[in-house]
Amino acid sequence: MRASIITIGDEILIGQIVDTNSTYLAKELDALGFEVVEIKTISDKKVSIEQAMASQVGTVDLVIMTGGLGPTKDDVTKKVFCDFFDDHLVMNEEVLAHVTVLLENYFKKPISEINKQQGLVPSTSTVLFNSVGTAPGMLMQKENTVFVSFPGVPFEMKTIFQEQLVPYIKEHFKGVFNIHKTIITYGIGESLLAEYLEDWENNLPSEIKLAYLPSPGKVRLRLSSRGANQDYLLQSIEMQIDRIPESARKYIRAYEDIDFPEIIIKELQIRNKTISFAESCTGGRLAVMFNTMPGSSSYFKGGIVCYATESKVDMLGVNLDTIYKHTVVSEEVAIEMATQARLKFKSDYAISTTGNAGPSKGDSDEEVGIVCIGIATPNGVFAKKYQLGQPREKVVNSAIAKGLELIYNEILKK
Amino acid sequence: MRASIITIGDEILIGQIVDTNSTYLAKELDALGFEVVEIKTISDKKVSIEQAMASQVGTVDLVIMTGGLGPTKDDVTKKVFCDFFDDHLVMNEEVLAHVTVLLENYFKKPISEINKQQGLVPSTSTVLFNSVGTAPGMLMQKENTVFVSFPGVPFEMKTIFQEQLVPYIKEHFKGVFNIHKTIITYGIGESLLAEYLEDWENNLPSEIKLAYLPSPGKVRLRLSSRGANQDYLLQSIEMQIDRIPESARKYIRAYEDIDFPEIIIKELQIRNKTISFAESCTGGRLAVMFNTMPGSSSYFKGGIVCYATESKVDMLGVNLDTIYKHTVVSEEVAIEMATQARLKFKSDYAISTTGNAGPSKGDSDEEVGIVCIGIATPNGVFAKKYQLGQPREKVVNSAIAKGLELIYNEILKK
Repeated sequence: MRASIITIGDEILIGQIVDTNSTYLAKELDALGFEVVEIKTISDKKVSIEQAMASQVGTVDLVIMTGGLGPTKDDVTKKVFCDFFDDHLVMNEEVLAHVTVLLENYFKKPISEINKQQGLVPSTSTVLFNSVGTAPGMLMQKENTVFVSFPGVPFEMKTIFQEQLVPYIKEHFKGVFNIHKTIITYGIGESLLAEYLEDWENNLPSEIKLAYLPSPGKVRLRLSSRGANQDYLLQSIEMQIDRIPESARKYIRAYEDIDFPEIIIKELQIRNKTISFAESCTGGRLAVMFNTMPGSSSYFKGGIVCYATESKVDMLGVNLDTIYKHTVVSEEVAIEMATQARLKFKSDYAISTTGNAGPSKGDSDEEVGIVCIGIATPNGVFAKKYQLGQPREKVVNSAIAKGLELIYNEILKK
Repeated sequence: MRASIITIGDEILIGQIVDTNSTYLAKELDALGFEVVEIKTISDKKVSIEQAMASQVGTVDLVIMTGGLGPTKDDVTKKVFCDFFDDHLVMNEEVLAHVTVLLENYFKKPISEINKQQGLVPSTSTVLFNSVGTAPGMLMQKENTVFVSFPGVPFEMKTIFQEQLVPYIKEHFKGVFNIHKTIITYGIGESLLAEYLEDWENNLPSEIKLAYLPSPGKVRLRLSSRGANQDYLLQSIEMQIDRIPESARKYIRAYEDIDFPEIIIKELQIRNKTISFAESCTGGRLAVMFNTMPGSSSYFKGGIVCYATESKVDMLGVNLDTIYKHTVVSEEVAIEMATQARLKFKSDYAISTTGNAGPSKGDSDEEVGIVCIGIATPNGVFAKKYQLGQPREKVVNSAIAKGLELIYNEILKK
């Protein structure tokens, strides 16, 4: 069960958009037991698509293609399918009826000739009905390789995949499982972690593959295995995780692939505690991180983005004297911000940020990169000052990481 | 001047991470005049890397590879390079010295054997020095194809690319230019737009390529051209843009590839006006959109994320009677939220959002998907109520889009 993904689109080849469709498809195919051996982005030229398709025949069982199915001139996938499978286009009445109803309801006028063409499909293809848009998907087979084509609009691609292709896959491809288990470590570098894990790694059974995924401040360890017996695979990975030596284990923050905000949210939920934010240089990003998931109102009380100095005074209630005496980027102001946020939002914990993310100096005389973070808890309040370098994006992201690390340690304290 | 990009990493093939490195490299290579013909993601197995490299010899001038250069066992790119170029590893003393200083300063202890190996490079490679990390890049050539290998950590990859590879490219590859011009339309579907543009598109000179990039509510039109005379290419595209018929032109919101918040920010800056936000269901996302760019303090005053009902009253000053009488998800509450935000943050404009993004009902009895958006301006205040469907993510994104559309129209009024 090998699969590949082909994305058609010049907009990806010139770096205008990020290819998130492939990420979605790769994850879903992996969960369905496929080994995704290649993801390829190519131009929407006819010859590029033909070459890419030809290279997959016989090497994989399933090829999923996205893009090039719209109503405009730059969309050529259907023509390529006809040539590649020696077929011709015919009007599919069911698709045409669907497109007609959809567009005439929307535009309140008869459907155009361009849009009627969306009902054309290769005569021997299996049509993958698009319940949420106009361009249908299609499925055709050459030798033992199944080719599937989806429109590139993510919402439509996902809907057709789930509604039409998943049932087909479950019927035609089964019996193999991919198991991945990801462990999150914070506060240790990749190479030191690899040193601590060297003996353990050397003793892993050959069917378990280990990967290191480093990012700033964090290393993810992924253990993967593949086979027919799902329970055995799971148990075998769990057994190895139990054997991770204490030198490395103490840096583990989660045994699943979640981000730091989610780790903190879990700790808040266990304790039935709430959090709020008073953000200057992080501009609301902390608040957003804590209200992305459903049910966030049980632990997230709110936040204020007090970007202008006067809003720190007027809305949050920071003392103007404190700002005059210590400047707006100071531990003293960070302490008052966190204290006020915790009081006013009636939360158990609060994080505040005030700093100069650059590129030029703001309301403060502090140099670019200086950030003060305040932490208010039921046990008291404190602040820390950091020089987080530059550019702006890095300062903001580092401030968020520091704030999360500080509050995490406080929440874990009794 | 043809280029390709090869990303090595199982984490992308299983959908664990999005490949943003390729997007960065594609954009940079395009700006340097390359035609990027293929982006490929492959497994970190030795045989996959070798096959991918072999397929590029003679077909492109430059191959950029990322990943597989770290200190751990799953990193095999250097070994593959040695085999592929019939070379062997030697210790590069400059790299070793750099790695040693970097790690000993950080860990305050002698460098490990694993880390010393980061100084090993193929003996005939050109080392691309990594000033911000331990794994160096490398450059080698087979026939007329140059192969470059970078570590996969985005920050390190970008730094080596800019510091080491761009000067090399500017010396060895020149004389061809890619010109792209993107036009943003809002409020018209792809197929209707294509209808209005049909005659104009048919009359485009053959060297100019047109692409449609649809996303919810928005269609981007990209005109691209490629050649040796940059000025001619630019003029020729501008001339065609001037000829876009009025039927399509009236939907154009920008003549550059920027998002709606940036379009609004430009209009605010032209008029020397400011904005603030009172967000419930959008949770701070509007505020974040308006403080991402440097210099945002000149037009962005701040925002409040009043998630809990009590914070709408306590911090923002919404009248508790209004909430009792009309429920917290109501046009009346949205109006008070926008009014209070505008007053308290002392801004010219304010947007408020209150709604039920789901999946379950919150503090309000309103059904899932109902959102009220308030708009406060120097000329008055109003609110609109929408049913934005589901799931949660779509409700939040649609609420943001509606809020931006409403405020944009108000700002453009005298």
